[in-house]
Amino acid sequence: MSVFTPPSRLLFGPGPSQVPERVYQAMAQPIVGHLDPFLFEQFEHIRAGLRELFGTRNQFVHALSGTGSAGMEAALSNFVAAGEKLAVFSAGYFSERIIEMGKRHGANVVVLNKAWGETFTEAEASEFLIREKPHAAAFVHAETSTGALQDPKAITGPARSVGALTIADCVTSLGAIPVNLDENGIDIAYSCTQKGLSCPPGMAPITASPSAIERLRTRTAPCPIWYLDLGLLLEYYEGSHRYHHTAPVSTIWALREGLAAIVEEGVSTRFARHQRAHEYFVRRIEKEGLKLLVPPGRRIPNLNTVCVPEGVDDPKTRKRLLNERGIEIAGGFGPLAGKIFRIGVMGPLATEKNVDLLVDALLECMK
Amino acid sequence: MSVFTPPSRLLFGPGPSQVPERVYQAMAQPIVGHLDPFLFEQFEHIRAGLRELFGTRNQFVHALSGTGSAGMEAALSNFVAAGEKLAVFSAGYFSERIIEMGKRHGANVVVLNKAWGETFTEAEASEFLIREKPHAAAFVHAETSTGALQDPKAITGPARSVGALTIADCVTSLGAIPVNLDENGIDIAYSCTQKGLSCPPGMAPITASPSAIERLRTRTAPCPIWYLDLGLLLEYYEGSHRYHHTAPVSTIWALREGLAAIVEEGVSTRFARHQRAHEYFVRRIEKEGLKLLVPPGRRIPNLNTVCVPEGVDDPKTRKRLLNERGIEIAGGFGPLAGKIFRIGVMGPLATEKNVDLLVDALLECMK
Repeated sequence: MSVFTPPSRLLFGPGPSQVPERVYQAMAQPIVGHLDPFLFEQFEHIRAGLRELFGTRNQFVHALSGTGSAGMEAALSNFVAAGEKLAVFSAGYFSERIIEMGKRHGANVVVLNKAWGETFTEAEASEFLIREKPHAAAFVHAETSTGALQDPKAITGPARSVGALTIADCVTSLGAIPVNLDENGIDIAYSCTQKGLSCPPGMAPITASPSAIERLRTRTAPCPIWYLDLGLLLEYYEGSHRYHHTAPVSTIWALREGLAAIVEEGVSTRFARHQRAHEYFVRRIEKEGLKLLVPPGRRIPNLNTVCVPEGVDDPKTRKRLLNERGIEIAGGFGPLAGKIFRIGVMGPLATEKNVDLLVDALLECMK
Repeated sequence: MSVFTPPSRLLFGPGPSQVPERVYQAMAQPIVGHLDPFLFEQFEHIRAGLRELFGTRNQFVHALSGTGSAGMEAALSNFVAAGEKLAVFSAGYFSERIIEMGKRHGANVVVLNKAWGETFTEAEASEFLIREKPHAAAFVHAETSTGALQDPKAITGPARSVGALTIADCVTSLGAIPVNLDENGIDIAYSCTQKGLSCPPGMAPITASPSAIERLRTRTAPCPIWYLDLGLLLEYYEGSHRYHHTAPVSTIWALREGLAAIVEEGVSTRFARHQRAHEYFVRRIEKEGLKLLVPPGRRIPNLNTVCVPEGVDDPKTRKRLLNERGIEIAGGFGPLAGKIFRIGVMGPLATEKNVDLLVDALLECMK
C-alpha cells in the first residue's frame, strides 16, 4: 500500500476552506479518552474562543459532534417543540433546509419568502412576525447559496417585540466576519468549522442565551433527537461530565488549534483582513467587467457570488480550475444553477496575493 | 502560544482505542472539497474495507458523519417509523439507549429484559418475538457496558420467522472480531471508528441489506432526522453525489487509512491476533487471582470486564493508572458502577507484550 497522498487544493469554494498547517499538525497529535481531564480543559479553550467570535457572554457555548447541518438540526429540535410555531425568513437554500427540518420535527412552520439573494427589511419582518406571533423566528445570517448577508437587527428587533426566540444560521459568517450575537439580540446561533474558522469540517459550534436555555429546561417532551439533545450534552460538556457519546477528539484538537490561531492573529484584525480581501476581490472582478449577484451593502465579505458571464461554460470552467490549477470554486444551485460562481475568500487565502492568483486563474479558465 | 502537545496515553479503555501513527499522518494530509472526485474515490475504498469487516455483500455500506451513537440513531430513525413495533433485547447500557431513542422517535417499543451482563438464548428470543411480532428487533452484538457477546443467530433466526428486520449494534465488535453479517442474517448494523477500527472517533459505519433498503424506499413519512436521512445520504454517497452536508474530510482520511492498515494486516490475521491477546489477558488475570464478570464462551475478546477485587478502590486505581502510567481503563456504570474495570485490548495494543504492560501496571496501581 502506497502512502496516502491527497491532491493539494486551493479551496476557494464556500467551504471547506483552506486549513493552516498548524491545524493539520494538531490533528496528528495523539488522542486521549472522551472523559480525560485534558479533553475537558480543551473544551474550555474552545468555548472561550467561540465566545469571542460569536460576540457573546452566553454561558452555553459548545461545539457539537457533527457538521453545521447537525448544528441547524440541534437548534431546531431543541428550541422548537412539535406543535410550536416557527417563522422562517426564506431567500435561499439554507433557509429552505430550516423549513424542511422544522417540518420533520413537527413544528408549525410559517414562511416569509423572497427571491433567492434578497434580504429582509425591519418593516417586512415586523409585519410578518406581528401577524404570525411565532414561538421562534429563524433566519440565515450569511446565505451561502446566494452570497447575501442579512442584517440580524432587522429581524431580532421585531421578534423580541412579539416574544419570539431568534435562531440565526451563522454557518458562513462565524470566524470570518463579526456576528455580534449579544449586541444583535440573537438567542440561538450555530455554525460549522470548515468556513470562517479555517478548520476541517466535522463540528458545529452552537450557543444559546440564558433565556433560551431557560425555555429548554422547561420543555416537557424530550428533544426528539437523542444524539443532539442539548440537555444531555450539557451534562457531558459541563459540570458532572457524564458520558453521552464519544466526542471526536482529533476534530476537537483541530478546532482548539484553529481557534488558537485566530485568537493569536486577533479577532478584529482577522475580520478587517477578510473585509480588505473582499474589497480587493470586488475591485479586481469589476475591473475585469464581471458582475456580482448581490448589490453592495448586503454582500457576505468572505463568500462572493459572481455572475457567470454570457457565453462562459460554468461546469467546464470549474472543472478546468480544479484539474489544471488545483483550485476549487463552487457553482450555483437551485434557481441560481449555472448562473453564478461561488467564491470563498477566507482564512489563509484572504490576502491580495491569493485573490490575484484566483482571479487570474478564473479569467484564464473561463476562456 | 506554545505548541499544542496533548499527553501521550495508552488507551486500554473500551474506546477510543490506540490509533496507529499512519492514521494520524493521514489526518495531517490536506483536505479536499466535499464534492471533489478524489473524496468519492476514497468513499469506495472505505466501503470495500467495511464490507470485508462486516462480512457482507450489501451494496449499502457507508460511514455516517457522526459517532457510533449517530449510527444507532440513524438505524432506528430510518428503519423504524413512528408507530411501528420495535422489540429490544436489553441486558446492558447500550440496549437501554436503543430503547430511549426508539421511544423518542415514536416507535412502539417492547423489551425483553435480562440482568446486565446476560445474553439471550434462541428459545428466549423465539418466545418473545412470536408473542410480539415486531416490525424490527434490535440487539447489541458486543455490549460495551458489560463485556458480554450476544450470539446473533439466537436472535436473527426467530426474527426472520416472524418477518422482523434485525438491527445489530456492532459498535464494539466491528474491526476487532468477526461480525459475519450475511452469514448471521443481520439486516442492519452500525458501528463506530474508535474501537475495533483503531481510528479516532467521529464516524459511524452503517450497512443495510437489500430488503431493509427496500423497506426504506417504501416508507411514507420522511426520516424524522434530516441529518441522518439515509435516503438523502444515498444521493450524496452514491450515484449523483448530490450535496447533502459537508462530509468531515480529515476524519474520512483517517478511516480510509485505518481500513487500509487493517486490510494490509489481513482481516482474519487481525481477528486471530485479538483472540490470542484476549486469551493471554485472561490467563494472566486469572493467574493473579482476579475474576472476569462474564463466563467463558460469551466474552467479548477485545473488551474485558474484570471484577474489582474486595478492598480495592476503583476510582483511585484508575486515577493512578492515568496519572502515574498514562494508561486509560474505564470503570463500570449503572448497576456495575464500582464493580468492574473495563479493559480494552484492541488494535496496536492487542499483543502479549502490551497485555503484560497493562496487567503489571494494574496490579501495581490496585495496591
